[in-house]
Amino acid sequence: MFHFESDYLEGCCPQILEALRQTNLEQTLGYGEDPHCATAADRIRYVFDCPDADVHFLVGGTQTNATVISALLRPHQGVLCAESGHINVHETGAVEHGGHKVLALPATDGKISAAQVRGALQAHHSDFSREHMVQPGMVYVSFPTELGTIYTRQELEDLHAVCREWEIPLFIDGARLGYGLEASGCKLLPKDIARLCDVFYVGGTKQGALLGEAVVFTDRGLAEDFRYYIKQNGGMLAKGRLLGIQFETLMNEGLYFQLARRADRLADRIREAFRCKGIPFLVENTTNQVFPILTTSQIAALSAEFGVEPWQIVDEAHTAVRFCTSWATPERAVSALETFIKQNF
Amino acid sequence: MFHFESDYLEGCCPQILEALRQTNLEQTLGYGEDPHCATAADRIRYVFDCPDADVHFLVGGTQTNATVISALLRPHQGVLCAESGHINVHETGAVEHGGHKVLALPATDGKISAAQVRGALQAHHSDFSREHMVQPGMVYVSFPTELGTIYTRQELEDLHAVCREWEIPLFIDGARLGYGLEASGCKLLPKDIARLCDVFYVGGTKQGALLGEAVVFTDRGLAEDFRYYIKQNGGMLAKGRLLGIQFETLMNEGLYFQLARRADRLADRIREAFRCKGIPFLVENTTNQVFPILTTSQIAALSAEFGVEPWQIVDEAHTAVRFCTSWATPERAVSALETFIKQNF
Amino acid sequence: MFHFESDYLEGCCPQILEALRQTNLEQTLGYGEDPHCATAADRIRYVFDCPDADVHFLVGGTQTNATVISALLRPHQGVLCAESGHINVHETGAVEHGGHKVLALPATDGKISAAQVRGALQAHHSDFSREHMVQPGMVYVSFPTELGTIYTRQELEDLHAVCREWEIPLFIDGARLGYGLEASGCKLLPKDIARLCDVFYVGGTKQGALLGEAVVFTDRGLAEDFRYYIKQNGGMLAKGRLLGIQFETLMNEGLYFQLARRADRLADRIREAFRCKGIPFLVENTTNQVFPILTTSQIAALSAEFGVEPWQIVDEAHTAVRFCTSWATPERAVSALETFIKQNF
Amino acid sequence: MFHFESDYLEGCCPQILEALRQTNLEQTLGYGEDPHCATAADRIRYVFDCPDADVHFLVGGTQTNATVISALLRPHQGVLCAESGHINVHETGAVEHGGHKVLALPATDGKISAAQVRGALQAHHSDFSREHMVQPGMVYVSFPTELGTIYTRQELEDLHAVCREWEIPLFIDGARLGYGLEASGCKLLPKDIARLCDVFYVGGTKQGALLGEAVVFTDRGLAEDFRYYIKQNGGMLAKGRLLGIQFETLMNEGLYFQLARRADRLADRIREAFRCKGIPFLVENTTNQVFPILTTSQIAALSAEFGVEPWQIVDEAHTAVRFCTSWATPERAVSALETFIKQNF
Repeated sequence: MFHFESDYLEGCCPQILEALRQTNLEQTLGYGEDPHCATAADRIRYVFDCPDADVHFLVGGTQTNATVISALLRPHQGVLCAESGHINVHETGAVEHGGHKVLALPATDGKISAAQVRGALQAHHSDFSREHMVQPGMVYVSFPTELGTIYTRQELEDLHAVCREWEIPLFIDGARLGYGLEASGCKLLPKDIARLCDVFYVGGTKQGALLGEAVVFTDRGLAEDFRYYIKQNGGMLAKGRLLGIQFETLMNEGLYFQLARRADRLADRIREAFRCKGIPFLVENTTNQVFPILTTSQIAALSAEFGVEPWQIVDEAHTAVRFCTSWATPERAVSALETFIKQNF
Repeated sequence: MFHFESDYLEGCCPQILEALRQTNLEQTLGYGEDPHCATAADRIRYVFDCPDADVHFLVGGTQTNATVISALLRPHQGVLCAESGHINVHETGAVEHGGHKVLALPATDGKISAAQVRGALQAHHSDFSREHMVQPGMVYVSFPTELGTIYTRQELEDLHAVCREWEIPLFIDGARLGYGLEASGCKLLPKDIARLCDVFYVGGTKQGALLGEAVVFTDRGLAEDFRYYIKQNGGMLAKGRLLGIQFETLMNEGLYFQLARRADRLADRIREAFRCKGIPFLVENTTNQVFPILTTSQIAALSAEFGVEPWQIVDEAHTAVRFCTSWATPERAVSALETFIKQNF
Repeated sequence: MFHFESDYLEGCCPQILEALRQTNLEQTLGYGEDPHCATAADRIRYVFDCPDADVHFLVGGTQTNATVISALLRPHQGVLCAESGHINVHETGAVEHGGHKVLALPATDGKISAAQVRGALQAHHSDFSREHMVQPGMVYVSFPTELGTIYTRQELEDLHAVCREWEIPLFIDGARLGYGLEASGCKLLPKDIARLCDVFYVGGTKQGALLGEAVVFTDRGLAEDFRYYIKQNGGMLAKGRLLGIQFETLMNEGLYFQLARRADRLADRIREAFRCKGIPFLVENTTNQVFPILTTSQIAALSAEFGVEPWQIVDEAHTAVRFCTSWATPERAVSALETFIKQNF
Repeated sequence: MFHFESDYLEGCCPQILEALRQTNLEQTLGYGEDPHCATAADRIRYVFDCPDADVHFLVGGTQTNATVISALLRPHQGVLCAESGHINVHETGAVEHGGHKVLALPATDGKISAAQVRGALQAHHSDFSREHMVQPGMVYVSFPTELGTIYTRQELEDLHAVCREWEIPLFIDGARLGYGLEASGCKLLPKDIARLCDVFYVGGTKQGALLGEAVVFTDRGLAEDFRYYIKQNGGMLAKGRLLGIQFETLMNEGLYFQLARRADRLADRIREAFRCKGIPFLVENTTNQVFPILTTSQIAALSAEFGVEPWQIVDEAHTAVRFCTSWATPERAVSALETFIKQNF
């Protein structure tokens, strides 16, 4: 039985395991000031073509979001994001625990538009009673979104422009960044991500690392004293090298993107298998997550042979199910799934 | 050149590296609900003889302290601790970021006494204006302390008793717990730690793990909804197994304590070498940290051959220096240091 | 020109001014421990028929909400409320500043239902990933709501029942409580408010006082250490008597309700005047706020003679306008408004 | 029996009561945007000779401190203050509730020195591990201090200079500002206060008002969006005029300073009466608070005829007692006290 429930079912890609083994007895400075973190940061700056960026390594997504948002907002400000954004629904109120309101906007396929952001900013700043309301102080988007969709280049250019216009930072949650950039139809390059926001992060946990997210401040001014924030928010590992070694490895010779590309292609095959059977999807997307809408009996049949995660009840008879691929998904598992769909649906 | 600056200079003990390798392709549930976390928790309950305890795994010490304190206090309460306590001086105000005052008490060799705690509680609750002050809501002690000293059994019994009397929890920060329990002269057993507090944690990062701390609630009532707190404070790893596998390994057949014992014995040798030369110490202790007070020229001489960390300026001519041993310290490094001291001081 | 923009345009009712004059040179204890606060609390317990309630006096609505919510929730919990609830939209994120998420539910005429609350609680507690989400820890409703509507007795009974069932407190924001209880068609008595929630407050600022809100914990257990919270949240006045004297006066011989009744009846007349002309309302209500939907030219005409507050743009040609009455509204102002409407609309 | 326990035993000075009466039926905008607040702000700017300052009115001292500090600090920063500072000991952790550590420095007679501040800043910024510690981000001093002492001009110049040098703001808590400026031996003028800090407040509650503190940002840049902070921290009164009217009155024709001067002179007489009898003081000061150290029998005798507040136990047989004078202290009460001391001690 093979599991498709998530992209964090296994440990790490073998290259990382090997790097950990090789470096294990090196003695290095702690708290992220070791040579591996330095090399990893250099490689990220190179890959994303942002030579002046400030790069930091944190432990997980929730922590990274809470830390970055805490660093960027003043107390009376909140963060604009999609209603379905991870910070709004799946981080146990970490942003609010840090004192800030999440200003949720209605999402379309997990995305928000520049027009929505502009509308929210205009509405706030033109309100006579604005001081009675939380001031929008930054914009958060996920790339890809929690539904596996991606912003087009134009959409991101527009979001970037409206943020510039109103002088608030744009933050991209890239927990699955590689899967987004390698998706069929994605016209964005790594350097576009860096160019079109003020801070983003490169997700490691869901893309082959044991854990770790790399935060990249393309606007260095926003990164002032950021190490204090990492420490205050519990993200500064004594053995910070653990993060450095992993990103050093992932960013070496394109490994990060190869792993993502492979996962995306496997997901494409799963999508195609369902599509051939006329099965609808919760959302049209091209990244490593697939959300077919299945009947209860279809789910029951599948579940006997494959690990699947029910995602959202659509109606009494139908539920959207999530299939994830990752660096670790064996091709034979996808083949078996294709065969199963072809024969049973 | 060998480094003694800290006990987190290397990766992890080989047994952990091997366990990570062996389990790497297993597919498990995320967020700490995998079998490795379950086994690790069982082993901790067994080793500390607290069969009913609730065990959770977090990422690092600052995060663990902030999370536990956030879970135990109400907003108008603060945490009593030694002035030199880690939460008071070296966590970038994480406790305050969570809304609570650290109520620092003068420390003697890094320790506070039951009498001090009782005094603070009595002073507060008998004050007519107590509502204008932060209410002491829990006690935090480190075992061993930040200076490598340990509480005696009687001291801990007394602290436990005063906390019971005033009905506030006692929390033991065990970032280096093993080094304390294995220290020469320590009469406390693991089960005593569990018995004499309401919650403690077993430090992994500084005792052979890549990262990770195991929080043990011997008072299960205090642990209610603790997983929400872990998530909110950024400590819930998608690949929670990373923590489970490490503690499963460390708690297997006494490895955790063997590693600590060995490090303590090596530290004893370093201590003895300095003592033979009549060199004073910042503090008398018996754990894996040694703090001789050296002259500037002694430090300069040492630094040519060994990595040392200046800890505290004592007077114009003297500085206390920290030497740490760990699971990774080679015996030959200690022998070389002994020889150096014998020949040069 | 007479102003109807709000119910806090003037100072205080003459009885309060006189009481302040008479008591001015009395020497009393500070911080709410004076005899006037004691008498005021007694009168509130009597009027609301809750002899065991714990009563406290705070300064304003935002502060009261933030303080009560801070006292009742644990850090991982949030407060369920109507999307249009004051805490969600008009308190500059005071609840989030205190660390908690406002869990907004869609509102109907400013109200939420027991079914919605039950749905939210069931959805949360049955979710496998609930620890990744904020736990609903209390319910907040306004009586009357921000739109001047009121809950029926049955609706409040149902909300109370669902809160009991799920063991979370129900908090009623009574910034305009008197206007609600005296509204035409309101079947609820003061004692029903006390009986059907765990904590509520009696608004002073908008009902004849200079400032002040009286918080009533009918569940005394929830009030433990509440004076610490008042102090921590900046609501404990050195001259706490200022609040005591005002509520002592308002609660004397039904003054509070007389003032509210009079204002409601004047609002009824305004409502009727618009209704006679076939003018629609943003919402049907019977309290001291009236929200007719007017054309731009109607507003312009009115504004020449009366102070009006645009409330909500309805469409390109229509805007809902707010008229408030209060203890201070002269009858002649309402008569003039009636005449104006009759002659001009 | 006359009470000297505090300077907030009565209501307000008669001029304020009269102003409230006269303005009671005026209809004004809410939330501090009325003409009385505007006039009060103008008068403050004039009296303190800071024509460009931004002036805001808040409710009480704890709230004002919490709000200003929240506005000025970033999350990883703390506020330097005297160990005996009000924010450190008597505000129920309001600063920590807002997320910040109070960085307490040893105090001498309630004061801290520029050298201490410089030392703390140098120590922090030169520490290799500074990111593990809270960064000092502002300085808070009380004028007069909680012990009724005052900073000399030179001391304040020096504090101001060190804050400029390190580019952090200096905040003066002026809850009793008038008593300080009118104290015998005080060489500072109101304009010096404004010149020598970045933000201060003029206390109303303890100087003749019912409640209210006027915050003055002489560095307007620090005041950006300050109205949001007032609202978020519960300090924005719907009837903000209540604060405006009071400060308009107090700042009219020097009333604020006259009241303070009179109280200080009465305190001088009390001080002199004790001094004549050779009674020692807890601290030498010249403001409206007097702290003689009395024996238990002296306190008992006094307490039969005068209200006194035990302040601090000095030894088994002696306690420091606080006598406060205020605008409301009758001269005959002071005369009676003088006679009592002369005859009985």
